[in-house]
Amino acid sequence: MSPAAAEPLTPERILETTEEVLRRFGPTKATVVDVARALGVSHGSVYRHFPSKAALREAVTDRWLAKSVVVLEEITSDPGASAESKLEAWLESLFAAKRHKAGDDPELFATYTVLLSEHSGVVDAHLTELTDQLSRIIAEGVAAGSLAAEDVPATARAVFHATGRFHDPQYAADWVSPTILTEFEAVTALLIRGLRA
Amino acid sequence: MSPAAAEPLTPERILETTEEVLRRFGPTKATVVDVARALGVSHGSVYRHFPSKAALREAVTDRWLAKSVVVLEEITSDPGASAESKLEAWLESLFAAKRHKAGDDPELFATYTVLLSEHSGVVDAHLTELTDQLSRIIAEGVAAGSLAAEDVPATARAVFHATGRFHDPQYAADWVSPTILTEFEAVTALLIRGLRA
Repeated sequence: MSPAAAEPLTPERILETTEEVLRRFGPTKATVVDVARALGVSHGSVYRHFPSKAALREAVTDRWLAKSVVVLEEITSDPGASAESKLEAWLESLFAAKRHKAGDDPELFATYTVLLSEHSGVVDAHLTELTDQLSRIIAEGVAAGSLAAEDVPATARAVFHATGRFHDPQYAADWVSPTILTEFEAVTALLIRGLRA
Repeated sequence: MSPAAAEPLTPERILETTEEVLRRFGPTKATVVDVARALGVSHGSVYRHFPSKAALREAVTDRWLAKSVVVLEEITSDPGASAESKLEAWLESLFAAKRHKAGDDPELFATYTVLLSEHSGVVDAHLTELTDQLSRIIAEGVAAGSLAAEDVPATARAVFHATGRFHDPQYAADWVSPTILTEFEAVTALLIRGLRA
């Protein structure tokens, strides 16, 4: 038994190791056996926590996405900023996070992209969480009289769709373009102008 | 010699036949030999007009895209409509055309999508033509005092980018969603609001 196997096998330990395995082998090649081997346990022990490779892949993406939402949640719930400046900061922060993930963590980004194309429940929940944050910011601006929106959730989804070029992984190849930040600013400025009361 | 071969072999005849061949075999399987066989000529005769399979594929896409731009050009140059109503009609017409092409002409749509992913010159020219039309509409609104834009070409590109979900072939799978038209209207309304003087 390896020294690692002496520690209790928690879901958190399995997910940390899965992240490492995904980084080493990539999303298509990494297997549950690779994860079990890296942990020094049998693959049956891993399956007791995650019933399939798909479940494990979803859980690791969920954890990775949850970390990226923390900063966005801080911006959303900041009591000291106006809705307009929060909206701008939120969109900038989302784009920066996606850009860095695509560049610095390409294997987990690829895993996320695969799940996105499969319409996975984990990704759907992530996208709902993001548009819910946008809704809260817009509702705050409407309540303060600085923003206007007849249907707040629909407007939040419209802002999210209109900025897809700057967070949808399908566009990741464009994020290294020298004009991408100017393009982002032009779209954001137009949307904020459209939201002002 | 087949009866078809008796007619002069014009580029137009080659392109019409290539469209038919693409519809029958799809963009990956269709070859120049298939086109030549359908025309009843040698493949050398086709190569005299189009030096490679790639050149033929680009020319047929160019012709197909040019047809789709005619209606958009009519909207753009309509002297009787306001810039705002032209902008709305132009975005609706572009989305309708893409949706119908994806649904009714999937093989040529797939050819276009392949060229788009290859950053082909033909597709770049098509996208430039579309944003130029948007620029003309926005400039007209600015001149009339109904729209506001500091940098008209940059604003036209922003409108085009913000509506990518409704014309970028990467999203074709979403165009059959029951909520897609509502989503389109929400994004368009927000952008037009942002453009008003």
